[in-house]
Amino acid sequence: MILIERASYVVRDADRVERDVDLLIDGDRISRIGRIDRAKLPADTVVLEGRGRAAIPGMVNAHGHLYQVMLKGRRDDLPLVEWCDKVTFPFVRGVLSDAWTRGETTVGRLWSAVATIEMIRSGITTFVDMDMNLDGVIQTWIEAGIRGVAAMTLVDQWVPDDLMLSPEATREDAQKLIETWHRVPKESPLVTVFLGPSAPFTSSEKLLLWIRETADRNDLGIQTHISETAWEVEQSVRLVGKTPLSYLESIGFLTSPITAAHCVHLTPEEIELAGKRQVGVIYNPKSNMKLGSGIAPIVALRRAGAPIALGTDGAASNDLLDPFEEMRAAAMLQKVAAQDPTVLGARDVFRFATEAGAQVCRIDAGVLDPGKLADVVLIDLSGAHLFRTTDEILPALVYCARASDVESVVINGRIVLRNREVTTLDERTVLAEAKKVGERYG
Amino acid sequence: MILIERASYVVRDADRVERDVDLLIDGDRISRIGRIDRAKLPADTVVLEGRGRAAIPGMVNAHGHLYQVMLKGRRDDLPLVEWCDKVTFPFVRGVLSDAWTRGETTVGRLWSAVATIEMIRSGITTFVDMDMNLDGVIQTWIEAGIRGVAAMTLVDQWVPDDLMLSPEATREDAQKLIETWHRVPKESPLVTVFLGPSAPFTSSEKLLLWIRETADRNDLGIQTHISETAWEVEQSVRLVGKTPLSYLESIGFLTSPITAAHCVHLTPEEIELAGKRQVGVIYNPKSNMKLGSGIAPIVALRRAGAPIALGTDGAASNDLLDPFEEMRAAAMLQKVAAQDPTVLGARDVFRFATEAGAQVCRIDAGVLDPGKLADVVLIDLSGAHLFRTTDEILPALVYCARASDVESVVINGRIVLRNREVTTLDERTVLAEAKKVGERYG
Repeated sequence: MILIERASYVVRDADRVERDVDLLIDGDRISRIGRIDRAKLPADTVVLEGRGRAAIPGMVNAHGHLYQVMLKGRRDDLPLVEWCDKVTFPFVRGVLSDAWTRGETTVGRLWSAVATIEMIRSGITTFVDMDMNLDGVIQTWIEAGIRGVAAMTLVDQWVPDDLMLSPEATREDAQKLIETWHRVPKESPLVTVFLGPSAPFTSSEKLLLWIRETADRNDLGIQTHISETAWEVEQSVRLVGKTPLSYLESIGFLTSPITAAHCVHLTPEEIELAGKRQVGVIYNPKSNMKLGSGIAPIVALRRAGAPIALGTDGAASNDLLDPFEEMRAAAMLQKVAAQDPTVLGARDVFRFATEAGAQVCRIDAGVLDPGKLADVVLIDLSGAHLFRTTDEILPALVYCARASDVESVVINGRIVLRNREVTTLDERTVLAEAKKVGERYG
Repeated sequence: MILIERASYVVRDADRVERDVDLLIDGDRISRIGRIDRAKLPADTVVLEGRGRAAIPGMVNAHGHLYQVMLKGRRDDLPLVEWCDKVTFPFVRGVLSDAWTRGETTVGRLWSAVATIEMIRSGITTFVDMDMNLDGVIQTWIEAGIRGVAAMTLVDQWVPDDLMLSPEATREDAQKLIETWHRVPKESPLVTVFLGPSAPFTSSEKLLLWIRETADRNDLGIQTHISETAWEVEQSVRLVGKTPLSYLESIGFLTSPITAAHCVHLTPEEIELAGKRQVGVIYNPKSNMKLGSGIAPIVALRRAGAPIALGTDGAASNDLLDPFEEMRAAAMLQKVAAQDPTVLGARDVFRFATEAGAQVCRIDAGVLDPGKLADVVLIDLSGAHLFRTTDEILPALVYCARASDVESVVINGRIVLRNREVTTLDERTVLAEAKKVGERYG
């Protein structure tokens, strides 16, 4: 068992905060919240100090591409399509033509380790990784002890030929991924498989229908990019005569809820459609800002009833995997877009990053309640930047807290960060090796 | 002397980066940069490890209100004017009617200490504090060892009567502030006095002309708020028939360069005017976002030739005093506003936060060159979030580095932060006492 003793704040969710209580974890679940007599617990109970700390639900990074940690701090002056051509594609090409085609996945395991270390240190307990070759890297997520959604990228058009597998090979890979990794380990799953048609314009209708059917048959979630840029919407209209989300509706792709990253350039009809079809919108404010993509109509989407989660997107367009900065950017960007600070607040974006994120990722977590999966983050409140003269904690967590305030992290009932030390991976070795290997593909 | 030994990067300015060199500080100035033989230095030279670190110019927070650290994490759902009425004015009223009017400045000294601790820890070596009662708090800045610009707020209209002194008392206070604190201590000044007409709409023409004349006579800088909100521009047109910056030009207030915070809602003519009159524009992207004020036309202002610096504004509308987040917000907000990621990049915003900030604050710092004031920040590059596979450091400093990576800070040749410990103030005691006192005014 793990006891978080006398936490100054237990933030059960955006609306329910308790003061000076204990939180008990038993196995992979939260067992009790309240005043707990330590003397009655088993002798081997691990105790984490809660005084001066806030316990919050583990945060969910609902859209990203882990490999892009290898591209941090690269060019910041390119629009999306040109950025793919000059930054991400050359890297992917280098990796594919070299290590990966030889069956060697070292580089993938290393970038997974680097990214999961950054995420754990930032209070992220569940992430979505949209990528092509996930089979070889998932073992690293399990070692790191973090919850991962493996959203396998599926493409059969637009992307350069040398970066795509044949349709048959793609489907075989997807089947293999599902069989090997969906809900693994069985007793308390950390890994979930999603299917990830990169975007409607990179997928034929045939591929999309196969994805829909395969997802339904295996009870899988789906993640795709929708209308990240104005260019993409034009492409869609040119190719299929419809804007992306309307097109997906027209072919029956939205019959069960999907998750859709970005949703920056939606038509008013598509905003309503997102609500009606319960599209899980993944808002990536910092990526949208840095690539100059635009501002997602989050306020209208929320009004339409669409669930909204937060994502960092890949580290090449952000360049942090940091839910605290992402939360404040999320709120502030909507406030300035509307020139109205009342449209979205701390409670809203906190919910996006926790409860809603867990919901769209189909994880039984995101709130701190007995019976929920034990994904808990302890925030050290002692920093000068967290100085407060009010007892209210939620605005401070959203606007003042930093990833560096994350002191300890429990995922699935296992302590993966303790007093700012990663317990599951050898951080120094990982960073040094990843740097050495990564430089080959720069 | 202080030797920063074998810094992995010495960032002299946004365009000049050197690898694996030493940086020597002698007295209050940078003495040499290059390979330096430690054996030939005096035995009492203090050595700071530079390996795995970047030495960068101390950052300049060119606009803010220190007292607002007492209001961190308060309401995030009010537009500017209502926010003044409900958040800042009640606090100021409480302080004025209580401690301050009794000649007691404890609370001011405490908020200065809290704010300077956060700034030092974040790599800020010079700040501007716009406030009414500065005389009693400046001693704290000197104790903290940070460079402060005391921009005394001067108002004679709009602000509630009970929050204003009489015009005569205001002028007397200003004269006293200048005589006591301008360029203090004499041998190596940390403190500079600016005059701060809060905004054109809060000042009569008579007051503005007195400020211009007094600033010229004493060789002082001026700081004011210009066109932060659309409301403010309307006020100005209603009161004086002109938009704020045009009005200042019409009364001869721009004959020497002033610094102007915000500049969000400028007319095209005012943008040209800002360039022509070399108005030091202080861009406060996070505050403008959080209050929903709007997006400053920074790209156009730069094209017009106006110097541009960065500010956090007060902690109640941000809520961090963090130049790293401010730099990335500065770049990203312009990129998304233009829907063009090429309009402003890492180098530009780094220059805003360092060289340009020092220039508009009239400080002989902001770049690392021999002869310049020794305001130097050492950044620890070892964090997983700073993982890089490229040798280029500037984009990583802007997009990946955090305030928590600031390891040591030298200001005016004195080490004020060493291995993440503040050496000049007792941080724990300050935070505890400030909390106790601050709660009285909540």
